[in-house]
Amino acid sequence: MSFAEASAVEPAGEGRWTAEIQPRWDIAGAANGGYLLSVAARASALAADRPDPASVTAHFLAPASPGPVTIETEILKAGRRFTTVRAVMTSAEGRPLAATLGSFTDLAEAAGVERVDAQPPELPPVEDCIPVEPTDTFPPPFMAQVELRLHPEDFGFGGPTSGVPRIRGWFRWREDEPLDTIGLLVATDAFPPTIFNANLPVAWTPTLELTTHVRFAPHDDHEWLRCAFTTRFITGGFLEEDGELWDDKGRLMAQSRQLALVPRG
Amino acid sequence: MSFAEASAVEPAGEGRWTAEIQPRWDIAGAANGGYLLSVAARASALAADRPDPASVTAHFLAPASPGPVTIETEILKAGRRFTTVRAVMTSAEGRPLAATLGSFTDLAEAAGVERVDAQPPELPPVEDCIPVEPTDTFPPPFMAQVELRLHPEDFGFGGPTSGVPRIRGWFRWREDEPLDTIGLLVATDAFPPTIFNANLPVAWTPTLELTTHVRFAPHDDHEWLRCAFTTRFITGGFLEEDGELWDDKGRLMAQSRQLALVPRG
Repeated sequence: MSFAEASAVEPAGEGRWTAEIQPRWDIAGAANGGYLLSVAARASALAADRPDPASVTAHFLAPASPGPVTIETEILKAGRRFTTVRAVMTSAEGRPLAATLGSFTDLAEAAGVERVDAQPPELPPVEDCIPVEPTDTFPPPFMAQVELRLHPEDFGFGGPTSGVPRIRGWFRWREDEPLDTIGLLVATDAFPPTIFNANLPVAWTPTLELTTHVRFAPHDDHEWLRCAFTTRFITGGFLEEDGELWDDKGRLMAQSRQLALVPRG
Repeated sequence: MSFAEASAVEPAGEGRWTAEIQPRWDIAGAANGGYLLSVAARASALAADRPDPASVTAHFLAPASPGPVTIETEILKAGRRFTTVRAVMTSAEGRPLAATLGSFTDLAEAAGVERVDAQPPELPPVEDCIPVEPTDTFPPPFMAQVELRLHPEDFGFGGPTSGVPRIRGWFRWREDEPLDTIGLLVATDAFPPTIFNANLPVAWTPTLELTTHVRFAPHDDHEWLRCAFTTRFITGGFLEEDGELWDDKGRLMAQSRQLALVPRG
């Protein structure tokens, strides 16, 4: 099933949308957070009648199982360039799963002064990086949807780890499908946690919040994105994970930051 | 007037709060965004009955003038450690000014494994940094509320600029008043824009969105915070501004990121 199908929403009356959280988009039984965000953002973009999330934030409220969900969207302001929309996704049992707040625009109209003081992450060619294949447990079923190729230095699955809380690699859909700006939201939450590489006694860092800024819409049909995720601050019971997604022409597509909980050591 | 007074909210029935946006908290006539966020967060924290925003995001919808505002809060989930609240601030004329989404907690209860791969910004002593004094125009009246001491290399007001989109300096309230975690939200938006130092033909970068993660509550009465704001990506018609706020004991208090608009060059 394509991402377009897995993230599809249907109008169900005044600001209300329905969707189906698909099986095998999960990690340990709970749907991937970036996927949940993408479904809420799909509904929000349609409500706004603007295709691209310039900035969108999700707070994750409860683990989501496969099945029907409802998304209640509310337009807070429809301006000249941006429409700001908030949304809550609820399970069939009425349990709130995720809340989002985002400003939507048409990025094709964006332009301005340019200055970038950063480089795309250095990655070996795709064929020299390490694929991550789905299993029923770990690596999770979600890996059947996204095609990852990890930097060999950052591949901590079961083997020795780098000691550095960083994950770099390539991303694209498994299906031969173009990546839109809603799909970029999945890419910001698709890689293994940075902390897997940090040699710390932490196995599970649930995400509280995820914010993504999208700068450009991907322009090719099924291109690989060059991605890097880093953590500098594991402190106070939290860690941040900062993501950068670049296209293969050296343009920053999106930046993300998430706040995750670090269990007591 | 203290920040506690300037950010005070009064209950006004089911999830509704009133507040007064104070004069002289403005920049060119519009109330500072961090201040608006702090008022909405004050109401949200009271609604949640939890003092500290672990993560809170604001989208700014319209410039706010001094005067009465209403904040409508809605609790989305009250969990064991976090209460997630969304809010909209509206002017007396019914104009939406800002929307927020945040998860509130008691940071005093937080703990976990620690690892920090970063250093506080290097700053000359407070007395060797450059004060920013309020005027009726520029520097803005808002500087009457916050006491800034800028790193001499980053002081671009009217003189030569460093060429680097970065601002470092010290922050505290002008009043002898403790800084709480709601006040930290103001500190994340109190410094001059990084782009002032970048030698680019851009004078005005309105903020679309601001997200702050708070790790610790400040512990002293009227301490200086050590702050740094950097921009790496001026591209696609946007720039991000990444902030770090450290206490004088070398602890990261908060991280922030905002997305601002870059006018067409």
